[in-house]
Amino acid sequence: MIELAQKIRDHGTYLGNGILKVDGFLNHQIDAGLMHRAGQEFAKRFAATTPDIILTAEISGIAPAAMAGLAMDLPVVYARKHRPITMPENVFMSSAPSHTKGKIVQLMVSPEFLKADQRVLIIDDFLATGKTLNGLVDIVGQAQAELVGIGAVIEKSFEGGREMLSKLGIQIESLAIIDSLSEAGIEVRAG
Amino acid sequence: MIELAQKIRDHGTYLGNGILKVDGFLNHQIDAGLMHRAGQEFAKRFAATTPDIILTAEISGIAPAAMAGLAMDLPVVYARKHRPITMPENVFMSSAPSHTKGKIVQLMVSPEFLKADQRVLIIDDFLATGKTLNGLVDIVGQAQAELVGIGAVIEKSFEGGREMLSKLGIQIESLAIIDSLSEAGIEVRAG
Repeated sequence: MIELAQKIRDHGTYLGNGILKVDGFLNHQIDAGLMHRAGQEFAKRFAATTPDIILTAEISGIAPAAMAGLAMDLPVVYARKHRPITMPENVFMSSAPSHTKGKIVQLMVSPEFLKADQRVLIIDDFLATGKTLNGLVDIVGQAQAELVGIGAVIEKSFEGGREMLSKLGIQIESLAIIDSLSEAGIEVRAG
Repeated sequence: MIELAQKIRDHGTYLGNGILKVDGFLNHQIDAGLMHRAGQEFAKRFAATTPDIILTAEISGIAPAAMAGLAMDLPVVYARKHRPITMPENVFMSSAPSHTKGKIVQLMVSPEFLKADQRVLIIDDFLATGKTLNGLVDIVGQAQAELVGIGAVIEKSFEGGREMLSKLGIQIESLAIIDSLSEAGIEVRAG
């Protein structure tokens, strides 16, 4: 997605320690039009996988996943990281280290909204180490649902996530790919 | 919004203690099409207020606010409740008690994304006691921006939030209004 790569070039900032600041359009401030077009792009790329539901993780995954859900006419479930009192006791649960929080976060999905044999498309903001995505994959497995694809808005190609997830044998798509990230600059291309 | 009132009638569950469970379409699972139509409805109702930006609070406000941003072609900023490492030290900050978390949460917005004199439309999932919305109003004031309207997906008319916020003298809209909530049932009408 050329527009997204250009947006990262223009508005992304490298903060050191592998952290890319994209809070001007993806988290904190959302460019709703860009997220809508990203959702449409996911819809096009994953149309052949015929998912029943989209799964993401709060918080930054919600906007792109909701827009993909709109484009594909599918419900969107987001894994909660803190249990609200509206959530039942027995949930599908996994955990993943958070890059931007510096700690382990839990991912929880209510069995009400993820059923056995549903075809699940995972959409999230980043594909980097793949650990958050892997937590969602684990939850799909707990539900005995069927994973049909993984889509990320931004991929960091040098953190090994794609290699790890490619063992799953499903379609993996990212809309922009960052090949290097340093004080010298951000190398990014359309994915 | 008749469709939304019907959705609450069909899928809302009263959990006791004033808590309405709407995680089948608003939080946890998102009905993206319904949220899109809610966003379009906000766009229609607030068109005359000519906002520059939409402000909401993570997490449940993100989907309806993003859809309103899409319909109005506006950027959407969501107040963070936990500081990510991408956020600067000096932020606009307020606090509000969370009904579903049972504790005080902080609301933080980076000055990068909320500027003096911007016309701000606040969109959130619930208007109940009005305390979260009031926290956002406080942040708009800290930024010396101009509040032009407040929109909520669901209002609980019996918790006093509208009375408190009406002192601000701005347009307040909700798309569905719950007039009573008890074991006997949910009384809801289109707002």
